[in-house]
Amino acid sequence: MRNQILNWLDEIDYLSELSDYIALPSRSRNQDETKIAGDFALRLLEKSGLQTRRIPSSGNDVLFGHSLSDPKNPSVLLYGHYDVQPEGDIDLWNTPPFEATKIGDKLFGRGSADNKGQHYAHLMGLRYFKENYPEEFNKVNIKFILDGDEELGSFSLPAVVEQNKELLMADFVIVSDGPSLIETAPTIVGGVRGIVSFQIKIKHNKIDLHSGNFGGVGRSATFDALNLVRTMIDESGKVLIDGFYDDIEELSELEKTALKNLEPVYNKIISDRDITPAIRVNEYSHPFLNEAWPTLNINGLLAGGVKNERRTIIPSETYLSIDCRLVSNQNPEKISRLIKDHIIKWSKTNGIENAIEIDMEGTMAPSTSSLNSKFLNIIQEATRKGFGVEPVLVPRLGGSLPIQLFPRILDRPVFLIPYALADENNHSPNENLDLNYFKSGVITSVELMKLLASKVNDENL
Amino acid sequence: MRNQILNWLDEIDYLSELSDYIALPSRSRNQDETKIAGDFALRLLEKSGLQTRRIPSSGNDVLFGHSLSDPKNPSVLLYGHYDVQPEGDIDLWNTPPFEATKIGDKLFGRGSADNKGQHYAHLMGLRYFKENYPEEFNKVNIKFILDGDEELGSFSLPAVVEQNKELLMADFVIVSDGPSLIETAPTIVGGVRGIVSFQIKIKHNKIDLHSGNFGGVGRSATFDALNLVRTMIDESGKVLIDGFYDDIEELSELEKTALKNLEPVYNKIISDRDITPAIRVNEYSHPFLNEAWPTLNINGLLAGGVKNERRTIIPSETYLSIDCRLVSNQNPEKISRLIKDHIIKWSKTNGIENAIEIDMEGTMAPSTSSLNSKFLNIIQEATRKGFGVEPVLVPRLGGSLPIQLFPRILDRPVFLIPYALADENNHSPNENLDLNYFKSGVITSVELMKLLASKVNDENL
Repeated sequence: MRNQILNWLDEIDYLSELSDYIALPSRSRNQDETKIAGDFALRLLEKSGLQTRRIPSSGNDVLFGHSLSDPKNPSVLLYGHYDVQPEGDIDLWNTPPFEATKIGDKLFGRGSADNKGQHYAHLMGLRYFKENYPEEFNKVNIKFILDGDEELGSFSLPAVVEQNKELLMADFVIVSDGPSLIETAPTIVGGVRGIVSFQIKIKHNKIDLHSGNFGGVGRSATFDALNLVRTMIDESGKVLIDGFYDDIEELSELEKTALKNLEPVYNKIISDRDITPAIRVNEYSHPFLNEAWPTLNINGLLAGGVKNERRTIIPSETYLSIDCRLVSNQNPEKISRLIKDHIIKWSKTNGIENAIEIDMEGTMAPSTSSLNSKFLNIIQEATRKGFGVEPVLVPRLGGSLPIQLFPRILDRPVFLIPYALADENNHSPNENLDLNYFKSGVITSVELMKLLASKVNDENL
Repeated sequence: MRNQILNWLDEIDYLSELSDYIALPSRSRNQDETKIAGDFALRLLEKSGLQTRRIPSSGNDVLFGHSLSDPKNPSVLLYGHYDVQPEGDIDLWNTPPFEATKIGDKLFGRGSADNKGQHYAHLMGLRYFKENYPEEFNKVNIKFILDGDEELGSFSLPAVVEQNKELLMADFVIVSDGPSLIETAPTIVGGVRGIVSFQIKIKHNKIDLHSGNFGGVGRSATFDALNLVRTMIDESGKVLIDGFYDDIEELSELEKTALKNLEPVYNKIISDRDITPAIRVNEYSHPFLNEAWPTLNINGLLAGGVKNERRTIIPSETYLSIDCRLVSNQNPEKISRLIKDHIIKWSKTNGIENAIEIDMEGTMAPSTSSLNSKFLNIIQEATRKGFGVEPVLVPRLGGSLPIQLFPRILDRPVFLIPYALADENNHSPNENLDLNYFKSGVITSVELMKLLASKVNDENL
């Protein structure tokens, strides 16, 4: 079947169609662009045999398509996003960002991998499935949703899902986004860590003070900021904020085994990238178990000047930017509140509550789908057939994606199968899609649909 | 006498001469400029009745002039510098930096206050003294030294002083530099704090890491830098580096009294500038006693990004820039070594000695001249007469100046009398000299010479 699908892809000139899609910019904040690209995407959904509609949201429209069967038959919701990141510094691109350019086996262009190319693979899989297996196509409830605000944190999606529960409900959800963990095998991901990020600004005195004339006299915003850090995290990396670790759930045995199996993969990533191992908080903060443990990371610091900007001053302002990655049962709203309470309490104790500003940013909840899910076997089998190699099972990714809304609102598991490689340059210049990997993704989608159709009367599904 | 001197200054058109001096740029790193301005300064020394010479140094020439009397008679060494800071951002200047511009009572231009105008006041005092008191002029040993590298930390001066001890030797040294503490009274300064400054860079990993994928996996340069800070200074500001406080001498009773008397002045400065009080280490870190206690201050911090540059990364590089202000008996070379040893020991304990770079910068020693000095009464009296108001006695300034070389090499006390105001914009755009304050400086110089001449047979001098 592999060769048949590859020939079919060539026949329909998928490369022209995908290139046309990439050539339509759809930067999230540009409503004119997302409208035009959205119309193109809706036609792609229709060409895959789906009935389509635009669903208005508080941001860009959500695009939806479905092909319904007997409600008792298997159902799947496929999620992707049609908005893209801005191109960034154009000088860093080797080819025009909004003109798909094939070089060797790679297709370059903004959105080629994140996420147009990835959901286009699913759409091609559906199109082939419908054309070549029309009977099976009618045995499955297929739902397809394309987010228009993913690059802005999917702020508009939760309300849409909440208001369209019945329309979107399916047995499970498949997301193809992000890169594969390693190049030699496809990756199936059961969950992601959540994230809470925020910035703290401390300001004392109208201007920077001369560190001689006022050293010992005037208060340092920098020293206060570092004193605050001391109260938030100890030298070993343990977070000291009350209640931070309270809601963490123990890993399941299946997750522990899957993570243990990943050890060589992680060790290779760390070795390939020459990464210095982190200070370990406990047995969890182990290279191949980091997804099971939350972190508090200072991602930005600024005060005074360094290098050629060094000045002997007491800085009047200091900025600390922090992100926390959350796991399993941790609630980002609760963690945000604990952090804010901690900072305010500290500032009051030190009599400097008017000198501190806290800027809490948007949050994402962690997502964990059980590795006991009965759909995981189907997903693994489809992926194995699609890529011709055993997929790597990743219980949880270290990063964050806004996918927890499906388990939360629909109470259905969500799994990720990235159809792009680790060097896709997601959000960076020279974003690209490996076309061989993409084609294996198309085959995986066909195999997934065929497997679902074959389970129509399977009591165990 | 005041009016006579003021009339004389007008008659000789001091403003034209000073303006010509300011109009000759003498930026320290420009040897052509310092040569031309130096020739002009040598003529000024000659016009004040001094025999002059250029003394070659490892930097710009040191200019020297003297008028000798009986070696048993009183002697004084006057110190100034003829090099200036670069003008900086020209757009921030309201008038051309190298064209003296009089607006109201202020003369604007680079070097007007730092230091051309200040040592020019001494030169005018000497010229008036010679013309009007020729007999007294011949009773005093007058020595005048003009540094050409002060704005580069006077790196070339110690060797010159060392090699010309006899030539430079005098009973005491007077420096007119820096601004007066308050506008309403002249300031006499007995000492300055020393300084040790350095930068630490910590680097892990080739590039910034994704804080999700590598949070808990990859080591953070930022977290290490902040952990290092924890080992260098505690929450109260107490320095934890072994031996840091060992050599500090207790304040003398005279210094304590003088500092206590300064309390209202310091309180006014703090209140006028709306300065938030520092965390107090102990009884010394009191606003009006800061000069008696050393500090460790983080003057620069940089890692990752803040504000619009925020990224959820584990920063691969972190910079810490630090200055320590030292007091009394502390030796900057010893303190530098203690700091370096501390950092290296910490990095070895943590197994990251290859990830850390320490960049120690030039140091300045603290300078303390005893308030018991028999010359202080003369300086106070001259200043009182020159400004018509009781001078403020400042045992030690919080800042640092390279004046300790005179006590160290010549074993003679050095006192500062700033002839410029606090708003002189030293090193900044729109540097200026208050001409009324300057004129009081000229009178002070005349009074100082007259007093010295009157002490020819005074056993107590």
